[in-house]
Amino acid sequence: MWGMIATWRMAAEGITAGAELLAAGKSSGDAVETAIRAVEDFPYYKSVGYGGLPNEEMEVELDAAYMDGNTLSIGAVAAIRDFANPISIARRLSSEKVNNLLVAEGAEKFAQKEGFERKNMLTDRAKAHYRKRVKELKSQELKPYSGHDTVGMACLDNCGGMTAATSTSGLFMKKKGRVGDSPISGSGFYADSKRGAASATGLGEDLMKGCISYEIVRLMGEGMSPQEACETAVNRLEAELKERRGEAGDLSVVAMNNRGQWGAATNIEGFSVAVVTQSLEPTVYLVKRGGDGHCTCEEASAQWMEDYMRTRMAPVEE
Amino acid sequence: MWGMIATWRMAAEGITAGAELLAAGKSSGDAVETAIRAVEDFPYYKSVGYGGLPNEEMEVELDAAYMDGNTLSIGAVAAIRDFANPISIARRLSSEKVNNLLVAEGAEKFAQKEGFERKNMLTDRAKAHYRKRVKELKSQELKPYSGHDTVGMACLDNCGGMTAATSTSGLFMKKKGRVGDSPISGSGFYADSKRGAASATGLGEDLMKGCISYEIVRLMGEGMSPQEACETAVNRLEAELKERRGEAGDLSVVAMNNRGQWGAATNIEGFSVAVVTQSLEPTVYLVKRGGDGHCTCEEASAQWMEDYMRTRMAPVEE
Repeated sequence: MWGMIATWRMAAEGITAGAELLAAGKSSGDAVETAIRAVEDFPYYKSVGYGGLPNEEMEVELDAAYMDGNTLSIGAVAAIRDFANPISIARRLSSEKVNNLLVAEGAEKFAQKEGFERKNMLTDRAKAHYRKRVKELKSQELKPYSGHDTVGMACLDNCGGMTAATSTSGLFMKKKGRVGDSPISGSGFYADSKRGAASATGLGEDLMKGCISYEIVRLMGEGMSPQEACETAVNRLEAELKERRGEAGDLSVVAMNNRGQWGAATNIEGFSVAVVTQSLEPTVYLVKRGGDGHCTCEEASAQWMEDYMRTRMAPVEE
Repeated sequence: MWGMIATWRMAAEGITAGAELLAAGKSSGDAVETAIRAVEDFPYYKSVGYGGLPNEEMEVELDAAYMDGNTLSIGAVAAIRDFANPISIARRLSSEKVNNLLVAEGAEKFAQKEGFERKNMLTDRAKAHYRKRVKELKSQELKPYSGHDTVGMACLDNCGGMTAATSTSGLFMKKKGRVGDSPISGSGFYADSKRGAASATGLGEDLMKGCISYEIVRLMGEGMSPQEACETAVNRLEAELKERRGEAGDLSVVAMNNRGQWGAATNIEGFSVAVVTQSLEPTVYLVKRGGDGHCTCEEASAQWMEDYMRTRMAPVEE
């Protein structure tokens, strides 16, 4: 059995490409890197890679991570600028003995020496979003927006190898140097081929308060299905945050176990996931939470898919 | 009941100062910040704050984190240069709604604007260590040394409030921008006043493969004593790493639960901890692991304490 699950509809083309590799017997590492590169390269996704929205200084600072569930090796970069594919740099770092997580200029120096592709990641479209936002907020203090669209994936290959990976430009209008959960082991991602892999998207600052990806993999190891594990982790963390802080940020997760079963959960409206397995064509699901805290995954309609792409590619009105 | 436990003998003076605050009814946040500032300020500890050893470009890049176990609020900085007390910047960041983890130049800009004390953290003594190391390794590639002396603390105050905090200069000769476990939630630290707090020191790259501090707090929440939780987490992670990678890096941990009971565990020789509680004077213990995986804490002799300080303060022979 092989399979991939990813956060958000934007990953559908990526996992389709990844699935071709998995079907051909390639490793989950190759599949997940290929899948995430596709999302990073697509200029209309404003929260990952090229076209990602900038920080408050109008710089695009990117975070990415890769974890090999066989060896538990991790590679990650945070607050890196001017490289086309942070996920590939993260994967390369996972093969180092130490210095696996590099940030900012140090990460850029490493990537430069290793010959990774340089690219100005700030698009005219992202600049238009920035100017629009500054105008909207000119009478207020600049604040990061509440949306969140990190791409995160969990992947299983035919040999039972599992990986998890993430890539994001982080919060729009974030402070320079701000790092969310995406490159943080156990928070944005976790993979253990004996149990499963998970990834998160949402308010990184809240996701890291509960080490949510580690917790989901741990719950799968205790025998929960991926769906139960995702729901349990989201509902528990949300309840703790509300009790202690009065509110909880956006928490959305995906997971796959080592048999290719998958699950997703969220505490928001509008979370979508993209899934493919040996027995399931690439499919986009909308994740809906019921009043009882259970989440159901409904296949997205053709109309929804069309509307999604149209809104993503619509001109930015400044 | 109140108390503090910290990694390494170097924290003894710090926790003594922290204990005075706790005894006077101050919060665990105030106590842990005061305790860690004392370690950061002491120039002879070569792995924390002023006098910390530099990266391979001879820059001192510091990491620190603070977590409030009541609210689960986290603040952290990574790869920050030229500020005297990273722990205070981390604590300050924990009160922000977002942008809680800042790295490199972004962290420095924040600290500058907030008025934190600027300081060149590179001492002549650290430079001497660097030159000596370069000479030793001139026929080899520069490699980070295997020692590890991050200060990490868990603290309980009289109102039941718990905190965890860390501060480190990281691996000697690390790559620029390298970040270890210390500022990473769940790996270097975790605190939950309902259960307990924990902190880790060792090879950050391996500690983050198991989210070890989160796991220790979780095990305490399941009813384990801090000592059992520490041993269980270290032994399990070490076994997984050896099975999958053939070896495991240094893993050393401390924990305290919400009743002031404490524990420590390690997989190395020579790990020491500093402990103080309402019913225990500040005491340094040597943590020894038996063949059965259990660790015992033996009070350090006066001779050991003297030798420790003498070796720390001995001239660096280049």
